[in-house]
Amino acid sequence: MGRKERTLMSYTPEIKVMDCTLRDGGLVNNFFFDDEFVKDLYEANIRSGVDYMEFGYKASKELFDVKKFGKWKFCDDKDIRAVVGDNKTDMKISVMADVGRCDFKKDIINKKDSPIDLYRIATYINTIPAAVEMIEDCAKKGYETTVNIMAISKSNELDIDAALELLGQSSVGCIYLVDSYGSLYPEQVSRLSDKYLEVADKYGKKVGIHAHNNQQLAFANTIEALRRGVSYLDATVSSLGRGCGNCPSELLLGFLKNPKYRINPLLKFIEKHIVPMKESGVVWGYDVPYLLTGILNQHPKTAIQFTRDGRKDYNDFYLELLDNF
Amino acid sequence: MGRKERTLMSYTPEIKVMDCTLRDGGLVNNFFFDDEFVKDLYEANIRSGVDYMEFGYKASKELFDVKKFGKWKFCDDKDIRAVVGDNKTDMKISVMADVGRCDFKKDIINKKDSPIDLYRIATYINTIPAAVEMIEDCAKKGYETTVNIMAISKSNELDIDAALELLGQSSVGCIYLVDSYGSLYPEQVSRLSDKYLEVADKYGKKVGIHAHNNQQLAFANTIEALRRGVSYLDATVSSLGRGCGNCPSELLLGFLKNPKYRINPLLKFIEKHIVPMKESGVVWGYDVPYLLTGILNQHPKTAIQFTRDGRKDYNDFYLELLDNF
Repeated sequence: MGRKERTLMSYTPEIKVMDCTLRDGGLVNNFFFDDEFVKDLYEANIRSGVDYMEFGYKASKELFDVKKFGKWKFCDDKDIRAVVGDNKTDMKISVMADVGRCDFKKDIINKKDSPIDLYRIATYINTIPAAVEMIEDCAKKGYETTVNIMAISKSNELDIDAALELLGQSSVGCIYLVDSYGSLYPEQVSRLSDKYLEVADKYGKKVGIHAHNNQQLAFANTIEALRRGVSYLDATVSSLGRGCGNCPSELLLGFLKNPKYRINPLLKFIEKHIVPMKESGVVWGYDVPYLLTGILNQHPKTAIQFTRDGRKDYNDFYLELLDNF
Repeated sequence: MGRKERTLMSYTPEIKVMDCTLRDGGLVNNFFFDDEFVKDLYEANIRSGVDYMEFGYKASKELFDVKKFGKWKFCDDKDIRAVVGDNKTDMKISVMADVGRCDFKKDIINKKDSPIDLYRIATYINTIPAAVEMIEDCAKKGYETTVNIMAISKSNELDIDAALELLGQSSVGCIYLVDSYGSLYPEQVSRLSDKYLEVADKYGKKVGIHAHNNQQLAFANTIEALRRGVSYLDATVSSLGRGCGNCPSELLLGFLKNPKYRINPLLKFIEKHIVPMKESGVVWGYDVPYLLTGILNQHPKTAIQFTRDGRKDYNDFYLELLDNF
């Protein structure tokens, strides 16, 4: 490929940092963020040099009860506009749309009338053709698009190859390597990054990484992917995200050498919003049950339930997981 | 060197896992562990396949007030024997001795009369000759020895080379790569591992790694070093250790493919001892202030004080650190 490995001192202008705090964090609190939290996060991200801020999901209001979730599960354009106005900043606005859970033909309007810049299509490997349909619809409407292929640690290697080829031939701008279960080690991320980059280079696309922290490797896996040539990097403030959470923004921005990035605004945001959120009893972040599902390459839902139930019998939980291996 | 890089599926018989829970964890609670904690940890380590268990420091009773510390600051042979008897197990017993803080000539008796198998000499780069004196004294008395060169992230590269040469020519069995400030990234650990291994191979010695978790990289750095050929791996249960703590034993043993290692006994130990310890208000582990000293390659003492003071003004703290850069 002739790609030169990046070094610690590299300044890599094509890096894009994607803040997923509201979207992945919304899975912790059903998207019930107060308006000041969202507004302050928007301001902090701009000041920190973050490239994209993801506001949440564009979920179907026919499938999901709007009374059971905060507004960022649905990301109405008007709600985003109430925060960002016309968003006259360098930071772009992103929303995630799940295959099969989004009425994209109806709910996604033309880009010229929307504050949203990027739609991120999330798909499992068996719904790639449906993902491509959504990608093409969004592209036609004028949006940037990326695609997350989820749960690949459970997928057949040949299926991943086939999926990458299909996506390479689509209009998508960036293909994400996603470690849904936090089960991947850096040397696996390194190899998969090379695989994704090979297809991406062939078709003129970028590659991104979305990591989870089950084994305290979200940051390590993110910078390993970066070293290989991955350029879209997902992070959340203080790891806020489902279960064990994500790559922490403050670690990532503290690491990147691009002079536009700074962590002070994030530190202030953490003081003002994350500390009280934790003190109010909202629970997320690395803990033993997430490690165990990560080691076993399993969905974290059992670990989330274990944590919610206030259980501490880690060994019994491990034995239960092994029963379902 | 002809060294073959290890892979994820490798089973590497020469790996030695060193449990430092009492020694590094003692820096959190001044070594006041109750006897049941120590006895249960000893049993859990044996059942988990841990190779060495470090009981604490052999600190000088002339320099340190025995009333201000628990007994594991001093590690009298009789106190170890009260836990391990004659230690008729496969797990060896280790104690750390700091250069300049240990009356080694008087306090370290001959191996044949002691339950201790290994002395780990801890030194800064400017006291290597004193470290060598201690190594030779311990070796002559019949002990295995290892050496930790601390704070190398602040050291001149040529000084590290000179230190490694001196230690290579000593009787020491293993030289530790130590990330005292948790400032090293995996690619730096990779390069330093190669440097240490080159000298170690030349002189027939092993290399170890002792990582800190300031940037959530303790585990990632440990397995990166392992991949390069490092074989002595330090860990503590649930990261228990000064400030942000260490590489968690449960992550490390969950990763290693050597069939002798298992995590169930550690999970039971965590349930019984670590959960109540945390609930009682003992504080350690990754947090923002440790990240900040790690990024800046500074001693964690300011972050420890910040945490003790219950401060949450992370941005002000960061500005203070920059003033002392």
